[in-house]
Amino acid sequence: MANITRLDSADTDFAAKLEALLARETDTGDDVQHLVADILSNVKKRGNAALCEYTERFDGWACTPESMEISRERMQAAWEAVSDLDRESLALAVERIRAYHERQLQQDWDFTDDAGLTLGQRITSLDRVGLYVPGGKAAYPSSVLMNAVPAVVAGVSEIVMVVPTPGGEINELVLAAAYISGVQRGFAVGGAQAVAALAYGTETVPAVDKIVGPGNKFVAAAKRQVFGTCGIDMIAGPSEIVVVADGGHPAWLAADFLSQAEHDEAAQSILISTDAHLLNQVAESIEAHLAVLPRAAIARASVEAHGALIHVHSLQEAAAAVNVIAPEHLELALEDPDALLPSIRHAGAIFLGHFVPEALGDYIAGPNHVLPTNRTARFSSPLGVYDFQKRTSVIRSTRAGVEAIGPAAAHLAHREGLQAHALTLELRLNDE
Amino acid sequence: MANITRLDSADTDFAAKLEALLARETDTGDDVQHLVADILSNVKKRGNAALCEYTERFDGWACTPESMEISRERMQAAWEAVSDLDRESLALAVERIRAYHERQLQQDWDFTDDAGLTLGQRITSLDRVGLYVPGGKAAYPSSVLMNAVPAVVAGVSEIVMVVPTPGGEINELVLAAAYISGVQRGFAVGGAQAVAALAYGTETVPAVDKIVGPGNKFVAAAKRQVFGTCGIDMIAGPSEIVVVADGGHPAWLAADFLSQAEHDEAAQSILISTDAHLLNQVAESIEAHLAVLPRAAIARASVEAHGALIHVHSLQEAAAAVNVIAPEHLELALEDPDALLPSIRHAGAIFLGHFVPEALGDYIAGPNHVLPTNRTARFSSPLGVYDFQKRTSVIRSTRAGVEAIGPAAAHLAHREGLQAHALTLELRLNDE
Repeated sequence: MANITRLDSADTDFAAKLEALLARETDTGDDVQHLVADILSNVKKRGNAALCEYTERFDGWACTPESMEISRERMQAAWEAVSDLDRESLALAVERIRAYHERQLQQDWDFTDDAGLTLGQRITSLDRVGLYVPGGKAAYPSSVLMNAVPAVVAGVSEIVMVVPTPGGEINELVLAAAYISGVQRGFAVGGAQAVAALAYGTETVPAVDKIVGPGNKFVAAAKRQVFGTCGIDMIAGPSEIVVVADGGHPAWLAADFLSQAEHDEAAQSILISTDAHLLNQVAESIEAHLAVLPRAAIARASVEAHGALIHVHSLQEAAAAVNVIAPEHLELALEDPDALLPSIRHAGAIFLGHFVPEALGDYIAGPNHVLPTNRTARFSSPLGVYDFQKRTSVIRSTRAGVEAIGPAAAHLAHREGLQAHALTLELRLNDE
Repeated sequence: MANITRLDSADTDFAAKLEALLARETDTGDDVQHLVADILSNVKKRGNAALCEYTERFDGWACTPESMEISRERMQAAWEAVSDLDRESLALAVERIRAYHERQLQQDWDFTDDAGLTLGQRITSLDRVGLYVPGGKAAYPSSVLMNAVPAVVAGVSEIVMVVPTPGGEINELVLAAAYISGVQRGFAVGGAQAVAALAYGTETVPAVDKIVGPGNKFVAAAKRQVFGTCGIDMIAGPSEIVVVADGGHPAWLAADFLSQAEHDEAAQSILISTDAHLLNQVAESIEAHLAVLPRAAIARASVEAHGALIHVHSLQEAAAAVNVIAPEHLELALEDPDALLPSIRHAGAIFLGHFVPEALGDYIAGPNHVLPTNRTARFSSPLGVYDFQKRTSVIRSTRAGVEAIGPAAAHLAHREGLQAHALTLELRLNDE
């Protein structure tokens, strides 16, 4: 049997044990940070030359400014070459992701108040966005859709994808996904050097306003370092799921538990139940699934290092634990999930009932699968259209408006010792 | 005469000169980063003891866990002790800031689609937020209002303020502003050590979910390093204004130009006009104002190092320059500002017409004065209610729903080599 941590909310030190379970090491070492800083600085200074050198060194193919570009025509060829079922599945996913994300579009607004000021908020899209797509075995076409479609819906005029091709090997389904989701240009580069190219621009790669998409620790460190030069989405950590169950098929719950664990040895799966017997049944079913799943070694390592089965004594205790965990994915596999929903404050995405495994949301339901990890759902949101737009405040006033509220502003300016600020108001107030 | 850079859009190298003007050095040195990393690590490990030691060392007063707390009662006493005019001005500002920000509140939504899935988005507020307020001479009560009021409107249940008190000196108007804007607890600590206390918590200072508010380079470096442990607002740089004018009083425009310059020697003021004569008049008026303004030395240093008067040959050229600059503040001091507005893509806040100097927005108009600096308006927004809320996706499906779209999801899961993902769907699809 897989050796899975068991916790009980009745334990006196339950809170401390839960904290310990969640404390996964995520610090990037100084070595990584210094290496990344060097790479960023070299690409910033030397452009294509440095980008191609690093690509040759890390990805093992003879990269040139010409050979690294992946044209829209190349993406279209990939789209045409994949199977009918591939195309139908990707097209359905794009259609559903678009339909969901279109509801996130916001409108400009303004209002005129009693003082005579008209105040508003304008929404504009970013001009150009860079999409980082991991390469090799962790290349996920679904991630291309989830990052590109919200940008298209937001009105971004140019989406540039970077995707490393280790050993020159290219993932055709990734290119097909890029084609159907609206990516305009691609470059076969990755790592910190690709982040640098997107942030600073090179002779060939255009500088973008924001970089989105997941990557390894070098990519994460590079995104953190270029933050400010351009925007970034978030620093994604290993994936997590919490399943809260009060019944249901143990085999289904065990599969849901393992679907997270199979991603990565650092992933975390937690099952919380009021039913101790159910927890035991799921533990057995996990073992049965592991016996046949291709990625059992990864899943077992994840489950033994980070997984947990937690026995609670009420659903309110389950909600309290969830709010501490702030999980990326939360399944409420409950008889009456709606009764518990109002008690959940922090989660990236919530899947309600027995017929919505997380994988439905990962691929096709419509909401984004790029979600806040590692407890950051306490303060951040799924990737969305709002990540590709920004707001601008708009302020209009008549002479009467500045006469109504200008004196208070001038008073505060003087109290802060900013006399030129006050002067700008006093000149208007004293104008004849 | 102040020696102000002059540019002309007809110059062949105008684009390069404009880029050079905007390239202000903002990198934090390695020394600062290492010192800050040490401070963060010490406060994380040793809590109050480290926090008080650093406060004693950097702020020069005998800090203890008891003496560093600023109670809500202490804030109330400050509120009652300031002048009537202070209270009236602050209260009017709070009322107007609240009225504007209430329009930023978002609603939950959901919809049921043809496949039988119900998809939605829930909005929840952050639980606890930390507000960093600079101390000493740069203590701005207006910043307290601008950071705290949106958090209150968002529904944040606890707002914790940190404000350094160098030499033990406390700014009463800052405490009064904290009282009226709804800050619950305060601590007389600052610098990287205060950021650490808010991010990790100490025996006395509660850990928060997000840290907002401006600070010096140590505070900025600390915020960047704790990003991920908690949220942060943005890395604020020196302030900027761009004024686009085709007429108006030179004295008004000169005062507006200087209102930014008086903040900080690193601030940047740029005036763009189609009227070369007006640019000369404003230059003269800048000199006249500098002769009498108390902060003339700072303003002159800013203007000579970073200021510019730019002659353009059409308003569309002005808009193109603005979009490259992506200024924090933009005044359109134009006969017909609405004609140019649609051409502006990137700016933090736009002030339309001749009667809205930036200072009106800094204090009292209602929109936030915490705005993206240093060209980050290309991808970021003013501080707002949305910074204190987050979204959660909600996904419901019936058995029919998973039957309709589950097969495509399972296909994509297999194509990504994630068989446990596929299994979660196939178990539901094959359920009798």
